[in-house]
Formats: sequence, C-alpha cells, structure tokens
Amino acid sequence: SEPIRATLFPGDGIGPEIAESVKHVFNAAQVPIEWEEHFVADKVDPRTESFLTWESLESVRRNGVGLKGPMATPIGKGHRSLNLTLRKELGLYANVRPCYSLPGYKTRYDDVNLVTIRENTEGEYSGLEHQVVRGVVESLKIITRQASLRVAEYAFHYAKANGRQRVSAIHKANIMRKTDGLFLKCCREVAEKYPEITYEEVIIDNCCMMLVKNPTLFDVLVMPNLYGDIISDLCAGLIGGLGLTPSCNIGEGGIALAEAVHGSAPDIAGKNLANPTALLLSSVMMLRHLKLTDRADQIHNAILNTIAEGKYRTVDLGGNSSTTDFTKAVCDHL
Amino acid sequence: SEPIRATLFPGDGIGPEIAESVKHVFNAAQVPIEWEEHFVADKVDPRTESFLTWESLESVRRNGVGLKGPMATPIGKGHRSLNLTLRKELGLYANVRPCYSLPGYKTRYDDVNLVTIRENTEGEYSGLEHQVVRGVVESLKIITRQASLRVAEYAFHYAKANGRQRVSAIHKANIMRKTDGLFLKCCREVAEKYPEITYEEVIIDNCCMMLVKNPTLFDVLVMPNLYGDIISDLCAGLIGGLGLTPSCNIGEGGIALAEAVHGSAPDIAGKNLANPTALLLSSVMMLRHLKLTDRADQIHNAILNTIAEGKYRTVDLGGNSSTTDFTKAVCDHL
Ligand SMILES: CC(C)[C@H](C(=O)O)[C@@H](O)C(=O)O
Ligand SMILES: CC(C)[C@H](C(=O)O)[C@@H](O)C(=O)O
Repeated sequence: SEPIRATLFPGDGIGPEIAESVKHVFNAAQVPIEWEEHFVADKVDPRTESFLTWESLESVRRNGVGLKGPMATPIGKGHRSLNLTLRKELGLYANVRPCYSLPGYKTRYDDVNLVTIRENTEGEYSGLEHQVVRGVVESLKIITRQASLRVAEYAFHYAKANGRQRVSAIHKANIMRKTDGLFLKCCREVAEKYPEITYEEVIIDNCCMMLVKNPTLFDVLVMPNLYGDIISDLCAGLIGGLGLTPSCNIGEGGIALAEAVHGSAPDIAGKNLANPTALLLSSVMMLRHLKLTDRADQIHNAILNTIAEGKYRTVDLGGNSSTTDFTKAVCDHL
Repeated sequence: SEPIRATLFPGDGIGPEIAESVKHVFNAAQVPIEWEEHFVADKVDPRTESFLTWESLESVRRNGVGLKGPMATPIGKGHRSLNLTLRKELGLYANVRPCYSLPGYKTRYDDVNLVTIRENTEGEYSGLEHQVVRGVVESLKIITRQASLRVAEYAFHYAKANGRQRVSAIHKANIMRKTDGLFLKCCREVAEKYPEITYEEVIIDNCCMMLVKNPTLFDVLVMPNLYGDIISDLCAGLIGGLGLTPSCNIGEGGIALAEAVHGSAPDIAGKNLANPTALLLSSVMMLRHLKLTDRADQIHNAILNTIAEGKYRTVDLGGNSSTTDFTKAVCDHL
C-alpha cells in the first residue's frame, strides 16, 4: 500500500540529531511513513510573517500529520515566534501531554500517570497589550465559548477513547469570574454528555499543591492556555523533565502535529549528546493518531524498555551514551 | 513598659481554635502584646462593602500589626471577598511566604528553604472583566510601575535584611511582553541598587519545573500576583501543605498583617482537631516585624522542636493529637 506522507520539522540546535533518531527507529520498525522535511528559513516569509515558510505550513495541512523538533525563534523585530505561528496558522487548539513515570528512571515520584490538555490558541496568549498611561500597562486575556468548548470536547473525547476515568478543569474562576467562568461553563456543558467520566473543577493554586503532594490524584486535566503552559511543565518536572515527555497538538480539520517541547539546547548541538526520548515518544503519539497502533506500541515499548534497562542513558539523565547509541539500543529492543 | 497592641482576626471555621493556640503560646512566652479582637460581621458594612467592619480595618491601621486566621467569604452578591477587601483597603502590596522543610516532618523534599514574595494588589486580580460579544469575554491584567517597584524594593530589602543571596523574578515576558516586561524592568532597576544580591529572571513554566525537580535552586522569588498565588502554594506543597507555612502581608505605611493562608476547614471546626502551626509560625513573623526577635526565636524554636520531636502531631499530619495537646507541647518547649 501507499506510504503515508508526514511533515517533519527537524528544528534547530539538537533538532536534526533527534529527528535523525526518529527516522532511524521508523526505518528499523518499517513504519510506512514518507517524510516531507521542512526547515526554518533564514529569512522571514511575508505570507507567514515568520521564519516558517508558507510551503511548510501547506505541507502539514496537506498531510494532516507532522512531527516537530525544537525551534528557537531568532531574536529581532518584524516577525512572529515560530511556535506561536504554527499554533495560529494551523489552528492547533489542543496541546496534549501525557505524563507518566518511566520505569527505571527514578525521580521523587512513582506512578505518575496523567494527561494535561491545554487550550493552545487564546487566553493570556492573545498578544493584545497596551500602555494605558506611562507606567500602567495592560494585557488582555480572551476566553471564547468556541475555543473552550472545542478543547473541552477534545479532553472528554480523549478521556473516553483512552479509558480514563476523570477530567479535572483547572481554573481561577474565584478571581477571573467571567473568563475562567466561561471556560468552566463550557467544560460543564461537555461533561454532561459524558456521564461515564467523572468531572471536577480544581483551582490552579490548589491543583499545583496537590500535584506536588500526590500527582496520582489526577487523570486528565483540561485548562486555559497559560495554566496549561505552567502545569504541563510542572508535571514534566515530576517525572524527570521535558526531555522525557511527549506532546501532540491537535488542530483544525483533524491535523495532528506531534512535538518535543524541550529547547534546542544549542550548547550540545551537533555533539551527538542529545536525548531523543521526547521526540521519539512524540512520534509514537503521531503514529497513534494515524491509527498505526501496532507500530506505535512496538516503538513505545522499545523506548520504555531501553530506559528501564538503564544501560544506555544520555548525559542529561546522568549517563554517557550518545544519541546514536541510545537510538541503536531502541532499535535493538524493537 | 506599655504592651504593644495588635489586631487579631480569629476568622471562621477552625480560626478561633488556632487563634486560641497563639494566645496561649504568647501568654506562656510572656509576649508583651495586647490583642484587639475583631470578628467577621454578620452583615455587610457599607463603608467596606464587605463583611469586614470599618472598625476592624481602622484597628489594623492604628496598630500597624495584626494576625489573621482563615476567613470564608459568605456566598452571595453585593459584597467583596474578605481577603481581597483586606488587601485593597490596607494596601497590602507584598505577600511574603517563607517556605522551609520542617525537620521531623518528612516529605519528598529535604532542605527546601526559600521565600516567595508576591505582588498582592494588581495584575490578574484587577477585577476588570467584561463580555465583548456573546461568547467572548476578556479580563484585564494590569501591571503598574509603582506596584512593581514597590514589591521589588521589598524583595531586595528582605533578601538583604535576611542574609539571602539571590532574587529570582518570575515572569512570562516572552508572551506578555508589556505587562510582565514592565515588571521585569522594575526588578532590574531595583537590582542595580543591590549589587551584593544575585538577580536572575526565570520564566514561570520553567520555574515550576525547576521547583519540583530541585527547589534548592531558589532563594527569594518575586513575582506578579497570579504567579505568586500559584507558586507559593506549589512551594507549600513541597514541604507538606498550607497547614505548615506562615505568611505575612506588608502594607502601606509599614503595616504588617500576618496570616495563615489555609482554609477554614469547616468540617473539623470546633472539634479541637485543627493544626495551629501555620498561624503560630505567622505570629512569629509578626513578632519579627515588631523586632521582638528574642520572643520570635523562642517561639519559633518551640514550634520546630515540637514538630521535630514528632510526639504530638495533629490529624492532618497523620497523628492524633488535639489542637490543645499540640499547643501545650509547644508551650512546654518554650
Ligand atoms: C516558548 C513559549 C512561547 C512556549 C509557550 O509559552 O507556549 C513554551 O513554553 C511551550 O510551552 O511551548
Ligand atoms: C482565596 C483566594 C482569593 C486567594 C487568592 O487567590 O489570592 C488565595 O488563593 C490566597 O492565596 O490567598
């Protein structure tokens, strides 16, 4: 049968090396995917107002799936952040981050197993800010019924499809009664359609306290943009950091752009030292989205078994394996 | 010499019991304080638009110092939240929360020793929200130069006075360039006046990840209102929760209102089961503010020794001591 085409953004810094790792593992697992590679341009594309080319966005739209490494937005004016351009242009409304303890990689927490689902297009990220008078500035947080319903729908759909029991909406509606209040209202509406899923509301400050005390209290968390930004990184910290957590963005028209959310680590770029785990696990999310479930399971298990075995560990995890050593070990575990 | 007058808000729920504990310990330690007690009223005072009486606010203003138990704002319209009224009316611009591991009370973290300093009057708490059109609502986050400078000044002053080495400003200025950008600008201005203190800026998502991975990386943290709300609770979680962390609000004209920030726990109210630790430690902060340093040290050590000994532990910490047992133990350790 025809191979499936998917867009690949290797990204900057360590991006190309960890993207190479994914390509390697996909080859070894005979995943029927043909990559369309797109790179960050060296000049601003006027059609996107950023260093992302119009063609690269078209590629994701056409293929419906993509995988993205870290992208460092060049400093300077007159262009938009690469990540924000992707979210905006592709309507990536939900950022999904499963977060689970990795057997064999010990942190202070065992048995973390939760998923954060972040609204990814509005809220505190509206970009609407201005100076009122000298010394007084304001930012607008925008919450819409449409975006809130959409991400809430996705969260409950995800919970049901993945056999999860509970959805917690995270908010600060005791202070932001109207904005977070609307977000909660939308979550409640959707919750009614899923009587089999327990629905609860947790105030963000209390949520963070509960997460550090006992993260097993949570299952699926859904929340406005900034809270999602904060809580998803907090959760990643519980299990070892952004180098170990996958992420996938769900966009308009069913697009899925899987993404390693860690930085581009320019200090170790090109040295064969990067940990490809987050991008590999993200690529597994892409495969699941494509319903290539067997391949997804196979690669997922190979990654987890490599980590559990503990023989090959990259420097960020206190080991001394190279990116290629680790990748080879994953292939051997397939 | 004349006793020092201080305002006491026992508050609701368990408030009166834990306030009783403080009075007991102060008596035992012969602290020269005379309390002016004020209670939450049963009707709205039109001069404060809340259930807080005008007289009670006047009492804090006159005395310059106070101690406050938990207050549950009655549900309903036409009045303001009790906590927000206090912050607004008394200009409580900085909420200071030292957070340290308590020897003898084991959590996943040892050696936590940091202080969060939260801007307490503006930011996301402006109360300015409105519906733009049906299904679209907005909240205004307001950052002013005045309030940012004031809390930054306090943070550096605090760091220096308490022998702390580093101040970290927590922000999301990569997204909220103008509001959080102004906050950072003010912090930088103040930092220049304190060359002996290391100044750094940490993005909030990254800060939360670092805090759960290794909280010893932090010393003093200063931040806008909502980030402070979130991070101070997260930090409390690291060492066992809000039942163990003191807090003190610094206000206009040098007012200090120390406060237990946990809830009023109506389920255990009146049962002699409440843990008075947070209010006791808060009362110690009040004593330090009054420069009653010997008394402060004495009571502080008695509380810490009681916890370290581990013989008297309230139910929230897995023990079966009553509030009065624990209080008596603290007095015995004086
Ligand atoms: C880089 C930054 C703009 C981004 C965000 O705040 O969304 C990052 O923290 C993330 O979570 O992807
Ligand atoms: C009760 C609530 C309004 C309050 C806040 O958000 O400030 C609380 O969380 C706190 O930290 O004192």
